[in-house]
Amino acid sequence: MEEKNVTEIITRIVQELMAQGKAADGAGTDSGKGTDVTLRMAVALIERIEAEAARMGVNAVIAVANKGGRPVAVHCMDESFIASYDVALNKAYTCAALKMDTAKLKQLSQPGGPLYGIQHTNGGQIVIFGGGVPITYGGKVIGGLGVSGGSEAQDTALAEYGEKLIKEALDLWQ
Amino acid sequence: MEEKNVTEIITRIVQELMAQGKAADGAGTDSGKGTDVTLRMAVALIERIEAEAARMGVNAVIAVANKGGRPVAVHCMDESFIASYDVALNKAYTCAALKMDTAKLKQLSQPGGPLYGIQHTNGGQIVIFGGGVPITYGGKVIGGLGVSGGSEAQDTALAEYGEKLIKEALDLWQ
Amino acid sequence: MEEKNVTEIITRIVQELMAQGKAADGAGTDSGKGTDVTLRMAVALIERIEAEAARMGVNAVIAVANKGGRPVAVHCMDESFIASYDVALNKAYTCAALKMDTAKLKQLSQPGGPLYGIQHTNGGQIVIFGGGVPITYGGKVIGGLGVSGGSEAQDTALAEYGEKLIKEALDLWQ
Amino acid sequence: MEEKNVTEIITRIVQELMAQGKAADGAGTDSGKGTDVTLRMAVALIERIEAEAARMGVNAVIAVANKGGRPVAVHCMDESFIASYDVALNKAYTCAALKMDTAKLKQLSQPGGPLYGIQHTNGGQIVIFGGGVPITYGGKVIGGLGVSGGSEAQDTALAEYGEKLIKEALDLWQ
Repeated sequence: MEEKNVTEIITRIVQELMAQGKAADGAGTDSGKGTDVTLRMAVALIERIEAEAARMGVNAVIAVANKGGRPVAVHCMDESFIASYDVALNKAYTCAALKMDTAKLKQLSQPGGPLYGIQHTNGGQIVIFGGGVPITYGGKVIGGLGVSGGSEAQDTALAEYGEKLIKEALDLWQ
Repeated sequence: MEEKNVTEIITRIVQELMAQGKAADGAGTDSGKGTDVTLRMAVALIERIEAEAARMGVNAVIAVANKGGRPVAVHCMDESFIASYDVALNKAYTCAALKMDTAKLKQLSQPGGPLYGIQHTNGGQIVIFGGGVPITYGGKVIGGLGVSGGSEAQDTALAEYGEKLIKEALDLWQ
Repeated sequence: MEEKNVTEIITRIVQELMAQGKAADGAGTDSGKGTDVTLRMAVALIERIEAEAARMGVNAVIAVANKGGRPVAVHCMDESFIASYDVALNKAYTCAALKMDTAKLKQLSQPGGPLYGIQHTNGGQIVIFGGGVPITYGGKVIGGLGVSGGSEAQDTALAEYGEKLIKEALDLWQ
Repeated sequence: MEEKNVTEIITRIVQELMAQGKAADGAGTDSGKGTDVTLRMAVALIERIEAEAARMGVNAVIAVANKGGRPVAVHCMDESFIASYDVALNKAYTCAALKMDTAKLKQLSQPGGPLYGIQHTNGGQIVIFGGGVPITYGGKVIGGLGVSGGSEAQDTALAEYGEKLIKEALDLWQ
C-alpha cells in the first residue's frame, strides 16, 4: 500500500507536468508553464510528506514555493509548532531564492564562513538550518520545499524524501 | 456530480468532527480538540472553494486560520496574484482575531465610522474589505477563512460559499 | 458590595500614591516617582474595569501605559478578541504619547481634518477611535489607559469609567 | 506565611481548572476551555512570580501566552527594563510556539547547533536565552511563561519557579 501511494503521487505529478507540456506545446503564451511549480504538484508533494511525517511521529508544517520564491501551498499538521509556519515557509523561500538546500547553507553561514550574516540580509526570510531543498527540473531550480516540526535531522530527512520523490516524478517525464 | 462533491466534503468534515468528539469523550487531555480547526477540515474546505473559484474563472488564494489566528493551510491557485497570499492570510487572521467578517468590518472602518483606522493598529494584519468570514461552531468563533483573487464581490461570494458549506457540515454534527 | 469595591480600589490607589509621596519626600533621586503610573495602580485600575466590563457583557483587553508610553500591565479577558491586544496597548500608548483621548483624536484625524494621516506616522501605534484616555495627575499626563473588546461606544464608556475612577483616587490624595 | 501564599495560589488555579472542567462536562460547546490558559490562571501565576522576584531583588516583566501564542497578561514591575517587555512577551510566545523552554533552545541555537539561526526566522519573536518555559497540562503545551528583568540565571530561576508552581496546581486537578 505504501508502494501504491508512491506510485500514485508520482503519477499525479507526471500527469500534471504532461498536461503543462501539452499546453506549452500548443500556445506560445503558455510556453513557460512547464517550468514552474503548480498548486496540484505542490499539494501532491505536501500530502505525501505529511504521510511520511505521520509515520515518523512528526507534526510538520510543509511549504512549497514556486520559481519566484512565492508560496504555492502550506499545510500545518495538527499539533505542529506555531513557529514552524514561518520556518517552513522561509525554508521554501530560501531554497528557491538561493538555489541551495538549507543544510548546505548552514555550513556556509557559520561564524567565519563565507556566507556568515546572510540570515540578516533578506528581512528575516533566510533559514540556515536543515529542512529545505530546492525543487529542480531539467537542471534548473523551479521552486523550493520547506519542512519544519521535528528535529533538524527529521526535517532534513523529510525534505530530502520530498526531493527524491519529485525528482523521480520529473525524471520520468523528462 | 456537483451535488455529489458537496455531499462528500460535508461528510469529510462531519467525520472529522465526530472523530474529534470521540477522542474528546474518551480522554481528558484531548477534550479541547473538537473546538479548533484541523488540517483535514481546512483542506477539505479549501479544495471545495478552489473548485467553485475555478467554475467562476477566478484564480484565488484561499487561507484558513485556527482559533488562535494562526494559519492552518493556504493554497494559491495557479496564476493567482502574488499579493493575494498576504491578503487571503490576513483576511483569515482578521476574522479569527475580530470574530467578524471583513465585509462588515469594511462598513465599520470607513472614514467617520466607529473603527476607522483599525487597519493600521495590528501590524498590517487587519483587512477591511470583503472576502473573509469567521468559522463558527456552537456559537463560538473557532477560526477564519480568507479568499483573495477575484473582484471584491467574487471574493466575498467565495468566502460566503465556504461559510455556508462549513456551517452545513457543523450543523449536521451538533 | 459594588460600592465597597469602588472604595477599595480608590483606597489602594491612594495608598500607592501616598507611599510614593513618602518615598519622594525622603530622597532626592526618587523625587519623580510620585508622577508616574505604578504596576499596583495599573492592576488595581484594570481589575476594576474588568469587573465593569463583565457586568456589561464585554470581553475586553485592558492596557495601561506609563508616562513614557511604555506598557505597565495588560490583561486579556477570556474570549476577548485576539486583535484587541494590539488595539488596547496602542490606545494606551496613543493617549500617553499625544496627551489626548482617542475619541477626540478620532475627530481630528478624519479625512480633511488637521491630523489626518497621523495613524501612519508612528509605526502603527496611533489609534484613532474611542477607548483610550490619558491618565492625568496634577494637570499633567502621567500615562494612558486603553480598552478594546466591545463596540466603540462600550470601549469609550469603559475607558471613561476608568478615567473617572483614577481621577477620584488621585484627587483624594492631592 | 510564604507557605500560605503558595497554597492560596495553587488553590486558585485548581479552582479555575475545576470550574472549567465542570463547564466542559456540561456543554459540548465549552469542551475546549479546560485546555487553554485563562486570565485568572495567568494573573495568579504572575502575581506569585512577582512576589518571588521582589524577594530576590529583581524588577521583572512577566508575561503569559495562551496555546495560540497570544498574550493573556503582562505585568511590568516598577523600575523594570523597558526592553524587558518585548523580551518577556517573546519568551512566552517562543515557549508556546516551539513547545520548548528557552534555556534548552539556547543550547540548540548556538553557532554550529541544529537550530542556529532560528532567532531570525519568525519576525524577531524567537528568544534564545533562558527565562521562558512552556505551560503544560496533561502532557500538552497550553501556553508559555516569559520572565525578563534580572540576570539570565535569575530569569531562568523565576520561570522555573513558575513552571513548578503551575505544575503542582495542575497535577492536583488531574
